Amino acid sequence: MPGTPDLPVVRTIAELRQTVSGWKRQGFTVGFVPTMGALHEGHLALVREAGERADRVVASVFVNPAQFAAHEDLGTYPRQEARDAELLAGAGCDLMYAPEVAEMYRPGATTTVSVGAPAEGLEGKCRPHMFGGVALVVAKLLNQVQPDTAVFGEKDFQQLIVIRRLVRDLDIPVEIVGSPTIRDGHGLALSSRNAYLSEAELTVARRLNGVLAEAGARIASGAAIEEVAAEAVEALLGAGFSHVDYVAVRRADDMGVFEGGAVDAPARILAAAWLGKTRLIDNLAI
Amino acid sequence: MPGTPDLPVVRTIAELRQTVSGWKRQGFTVGFVPTMGALHEGHLALVREAGERADRVVASVFVNPAQFAAHEDLGTYPRQEARDAELLAGAGCDLMYAPEVAEMYRPGATTTVSVGAPAEGLEGKCRPHMFGGVALVVAKLLNQVQPDTAVFGEKDFQQLIVIRRLVRDLDIPVEIVGSPTIRDGHGLALSSRNAYLSEAELTVARRLNGVLAEAGARIASGAAIEEVAAEAVEALLGAGFSHVDYVAVRRADDMGVFEGGAVDAPARILAAAWLGKTRLIDNLAI
Repeated sequence: MPGTPDLPVVRTIAELRQTVSGWKRQGFTVGFVPTMGALHEGHLALVREAGERADRVVASVFVNPAQFAAHEDLGTYPRQEARDAELLAGAGCDLMYAPEVAEMYRPGATTTVSVGAPAEGLEGKCRPHMFGGVALVVAKLLNQVQPDTAVFGEKDFQQLIVIRRLVRDLDIPVEIVGSPTIRDGHGLALSSRNAYLSEAELTVARRLNGVLAEAGARIASGAAIEEVAAEAVEALLGAGFSHVDYVAVRRADDMGVFEGGAVDAPARILAAAWLGKTRLIDNLAI
Repeated sequence: MPGTPDLPVVRTIAELRQTVSGWKRQGFTVGFVPTMGALHEGHLALVREAGERADRVVASVFVNPAQFAAHEDLGTYPRQEARDAELLAGAGCDLMYAPEVAEMYRPGATTTVSVGAPAEGLEGKCRPHMFGGVALVVAKLLNQVQPDTAVFGEKDFQQLIVIRRLVRDLDIPVEIVGSPTIRDGHGLALSSRNAYLSEAELTVARRLNGVLAEAGARIASGAAIEEVAAEAVEALLGAGFSHVDYVAVRRADDMGVFEGGAVDAPARILAAAWLGKTRLIDNLAI
């Protein structure tokens, strides 16, 4: 990205707060995009969204160990900080906050945060560590940055709902904005984990959004949720996915189950499926 | 308190933030004292301490149902809001924040906060609901008020340590100040619950601090913690207390146990004891 000026990078809460409070003294509003790095167009869309809503934008790059289980891909999760900084600068970010693990989790820390019901099914069931780790690190990051607005991707839809609940229940003074999923030309949701996929797996992965779209359309037309979801699982396995954790339909506002078997409120269809060792998630509005 | 101007009272987060953000725009710092009302000189000392450290002082009056168990004294906890407002004004408070329960706990709230180890023994063992309720409401209050400084009494010493840990672990941007316990002429720690005591019980209650002071002095001189604590329990029962929940010695910084049986770091002796239906707590530095 020739001509992009170097992005300032801070690694401590003290430096971060110094910059942000300087902005606030000048009357600037602050937008925030938390990431785990390995940035792609999806993240950059969040940064641009933050830039439209606030005068200054902070992006964090922190691979949060608290949201990975021991068997998961913490060690191999892609890291490319120099490139991330370049991409962020190009998208209009003003400051990259890239703390070390020891800055985020100081010795003797014991506090945990649980968001309860919205975090309990789907991803919360498949990855029991995750939302506790997400809630803790997001509460910390929001308190560290103190932004006016924070932007999260709808790609991790349940996570977005969990964070909205966290912020509402703890009265954290920030506006949470959900931003639409960015997809490739075949509809595949952009994800840092797509980098793990072989060419053959990529072809299969690109079927995920189509299967969900078709299932969502049938449910919107009145078909029974359980039946359509079971058929979508079969369709994914038929397309070449090696395992399907879930295809599910939930209330869009709180991830609640539709007890009657049909949707009677804004709904989301969500799925998680495996291609070899790579786990992909996606979701669509119904 | 003749001549004291009426204290402004707000009951919603929106009104509270409007006032506080107005002060911040003028460059004023903000001190905060959370209370459950039924104010006495102990609370007023916290308000004065906040006034010495900040340009404007907010006190909240909120009897937090989340920190009472079903069998505890939520229903009978003393309430005297008009008098509280008068006392706060006289101590230099600038704003009373007295939210209704429905403003603090909105329908559908599910988030919980646990501070872990420092909240686990002593009060946390005797009153298992309490510190979860305290951590949640204090996190919410700090996010609602957004003070620069918040002052808590050493009277509830374990609570002070729990709140320090909460604020550190969640990176809440506030300085927590602990303020010494205020006592009557006989050394009895002031407490809203002292109002429950008969004259005869009050005479017994006034022995609590002396028993703790003597036990603390012996431990400071090298006597074995467990032995001295057991003798202090007997002394309290002998003085007329009807039951003793605990007399214990803990590390002053994190409520940790002294594994060796002797104190080798700053320590606190803490006790909880009953007079009929009234439960009193107290603590002293060793």
